[in-house]
Amino acid sequence: MPIVNAYAAQDANSPLAPFQIERRELREQDVQIEILYSGVCHSDVHQARSEWGPSLYPIVPGHEIVGRVTAVGAGVSRFKVGDLAGVGVMVDSCQHCESCAEGLEQYCENGHTTTYNSREKDTGNLTFGGYSTSIVTTEKFVLQIPTSLRLEAVAPLLCAGITMYSPLRHWKIGAGHKIAIVGLGGLGHMGIKLAAALGADVTLFTTSQSKAEDALRLGAHHVIISSDKEAMKAARASFDFILSTVPTSHDLNPYLRTLKRDGQLVIVGAIDPVGVHGGVLISHRRSVSGSNIGGLAETQEMLDFCGEHGIVADIELIDMQDINTAYDRMVKNDVKYRFVIDMASLK
Amino acid sequence: MPIVNAYAAQDANSPLAPFQIERRELREQDVQIEILYSGVCHSDVHQARSEWGPSLYPIVPGHEIVGRVTAVGAGVSRFKVGDLAGVGVMVDSCQHCESCAEGLEQYCENGHTTTYNSREKDTGNLTFGGYSTSIVTTEKFVLQIPTSLRLEAVAPLLCAGITMYSPLRHWKIGAGHKIAIVGLGGLGHMGIKLAAALGADVTLFTTSQSKAEDALRLGAHHVIISSDKEAMKAARASFDFILSTVPTSHDLNPYLRTLKRDGQLVIVGAIDPVGVHGGVLISHRRSVSGSNIGGLAETQEMLDFCGEHGIVADIELIDMQDINTAYDRMVKNDVKYRFVIDMASLK
Ligand SMILES: [Zn+2]
Ligand SMILES: [Zn+2]
Ligand SMILES: [Zn+2]
Ligand SMILES: [Zn+2]
Repeated sequence: MPIVNAYAAQDANSPLAPFQIERRELREQDVQIEILYSGVCHSDVHQARSEWGPSLYPIVPGHEIVGRVTAVGAGVSRFKVGDLAGVGVMVDSCQHCESCAEGLEQYCENGHTTTYNSREKDTGNLTFGGYSTSIVTTEKFVLQIPTSLRLEAVAPLLCAGITMYSPLRHWKIGAGHKIAIVGLGGLGHMGIKLAAALGADVTLFTTSQSKAEDALRLGAHHVIISSDKEAMKAARASFDFILSTVPTSHDLNPYLRTLKRDGQLVIVGAIDPVGVHGGVLISHRRSVSGSNIGGLAETQEMLDFCGEHGIVADIELIDMQDINTAYDRMVKNDVKYRFVIDMASLK
Repeated sequence: MPIVNAYAAQDANSPLAPFQIERRELREQDVQIEILYSGVCHSDVHQARSEWGPSLYPIVPGHEIVGRVTAVGAGVSRFKVGDLAGVGVMVDSCQHCESCAEGLEQYCENGHTTTYNSREKDTGNLTFGGYSTSIVTTEKFVLQIPTSLRLEAVAPLLCAGITMYSPLRHWKIGAGHKIAIVGLGGLGHMGIKLAAALGADVTLFTTSQSKAEDALRLGAHHVIISSDKEAMKAARASFDFILSTVPTSHDLNPYLRTLKRDGQLVIVGAIDPVGVHGGVLISHRRSVSGSNIGGLAETQEMLDFCGEHGIVADIELIDMQDINTAYDRMVKNDVKYRFVIDMASLK
């Protein structure tokens, strides 16, 4: 079995540190990828620290993976050695349930296999993510990467990008829609870029005046400071659609009140209780929904869309050795807007 | 001005008692209706007692009104003297906003005028509801009543019926859908009848084993006792659509977990905070929405649908003089499933 360099946490309280992992022997449907860049997602921190229930250790985080194909199994048709390739949040799913049949592997009714902190269905072996020098993944779960984009800034599209793109597409957002994004971080900054490219009129809700200028630079048309009660009142019943990227429990009602009749608020980050008032929904037939990343076909569509529109993430490139500092900074939202690890640093 | 007999509460703490009110002189677009039957809605109790904020007194409740036309203004075309006619929750709206233009007067952006506990837009006079012997209403807000149905049992369709019908139609529920109704009361029993007539497979969620048999009689195909944890677990991810009729703050999560991917839970009663967990929405792209009664066109459609399918409410007919006892029994859910006042008792 090929042994490769990685960074792992050995338990919930230890920092990430160098570690060696085994990658599986190439199977007929497998693509072997030399990882060039790996994005750093908030959920990496949560899972490294067992903040979402006990994680499986050792844990090698990373599910925003881009690199170059170094080998392909005999049954692989979409990739050849030398191609750019990406891996996102999932590496497998049952492939026979209704959701899988519809290309919605993220909602696989038998549970998809995540890129790390999971076990391979057949072998029971732990899955290890992108904080490593290579990965072996079944072709179905490998994405084609547009060659026109700055590769290191593509990595965050594989989780942050698709997490925003999927709900925008599912609820058919485009020209003529007034939409808002709540929060300007890794997710929010991609939401602004994607929604603007889809033709929507985009507002950012933020608590922080300091983010207003940056939001406009990223493509937002308007900014509302959500602590400004007058501004929130003025925005009542004005939006068709809102995406909340807030990653923790929060009160949705101030945002819900800014939705028009039949407006939709979608949460993508908060896997916690959220504040919802029945009267606020009933009075305008408003809806609250949740959305989880995106399926493989939609992820490919998103990458192609980003290729056409020249969309990438705003990133800060770091060495693998800087990861623990980066985690601490992320927790304080001190990053514009995504850390990406230059995997050359781990060679 | 015509003076008519009514029952009114003079303040939040007084029982309803005989009272005389003035009905306006017939205008060109007005229909004058002799009220024959008036349904008793939970919101009558809430508003008589100022439980939804301070009400306007004297208050004459009642917004499930059926009767016979006794006079029409010169501009009225849809009604003539002797016709059956109904009035529901609204008697006016702005008629020029987007919602009104779409026939969604219940979401009028300038506020609709409710049948009671409201003021006429032009005169500022208080509106008085159905606990009276006649009413004068602009034709646009008067409904045609199928002659094939038992008239006293039609009254509750004007609020309970349309409140259930509107979300079922808006979310296009019909054959092939597995749906559930939460709670078996005035709303819930209409929900079962309407959803079954629309062709859906209908389950009742109830806390009370004693209601199971009745639910099946009303047309439900299955009953789940919501306090039975095993039964709730077995129902996970099995419904396309759920209508919750629970009239107060409640935890939606146990019901949300029984929705399939892309399933929709709609609340119609609880104008209070409701319990929603972000993870429960995100994991299956589930939605929570609210729905408020229905528009005029949809209410007419519902009445015609009920006429075709022979659908009426299950009622207990009372005299006007019994209203305070009826309120007390309603608060204890001791009614199967709607009180209707025989207005002959007030002559
Ligand atoms: Zn992620
Ligand atoms: Zn599946
Ligand atoms: Zn009512
Ligand atoms: Zn209007």
